[in-house]
Amino acid sequence: MTHLGFHYIWDIYNCNYTAIDKIAPVASLMTEIVQTSQLTKLGESFNQFAPHGVTGVYLLEESHLSAHSWPENNYIAIDLFSCVPLNNLAEIGKLLSLHLGDVRIDYKMVERGKL
Amino acid sequence: MTHLGFHYIWDIYNCNYTAIDKIAPVASLMTEIVQTSQLTKLGESFNQFAPHGVTGVYLLEESHLSAHSWPENNYIAIDLFSCVPLNNLAEIGKLLSLHLGDVRIDYKMVERGKL
Repeated sequence: MTHLGFHYIWDIYNCNYTAIDKIAPVASLMTEIVQTSQLTKLGESFNQFAPHGVTGVYLLEESHLSAHSWPENNYIAIDLFSCVPLNNLAEIGKLLSLHLGDVRIDYKMVERGKL
Repeated sequence: MTHLGFHYIWDIYNCNYTAIDKIAPVASLMTEIVQTSQLTKLGESFNQFAPHGVTGVYLLEESHLSAHSWPENNYIAIDLFSCVPLNNLAEIGKLLSLHLGDVRIDYKMVERGKL
């Protein structure tokens, strides 16, 4: 490996409002991403905004997973920072569509900590 | 504004080992970054790795701040995702040097959630 961290970034547009407005559905999606990626959650922190929107982070054994939603713009930002590379990106893409609707996803991976 | 989120990414090399090996000094740096940026912490989660290294996230009113260290590589990754733009990047740069030593910083800002 030529770097220490693998930072996966999803900018997700055209989300269903109800899929990203409250903590419960967003946490459910985050948990499924962690499970399908075989990562380990060590802690979590969420905040419900009024009138709408959620911000949440999972602390992972492998680094972190975050989600920040703007339901009024049908947008959610999801970041997964991991010290191990993922081999299930297609599966995560399917989860995003399953939970969020007929979305448009801008995806990128940023290499962190070059050796 | 043309986007919803401002994602500031610092890849910091040549850090002093003792500055990034334990939770306390890393949390202290994170708290100073939040304070100088006039952001609001809502929650936090940390893990101390053995034999070395820290992973931590602050949930912010404005999104999140994360730090993941590899002391054995003298490297720490710091991310600040904010729904408001920062106007104190030079001040944060000074904090990083003050806390971490004679570092080399690779910095970038990623626009998130284009409108």
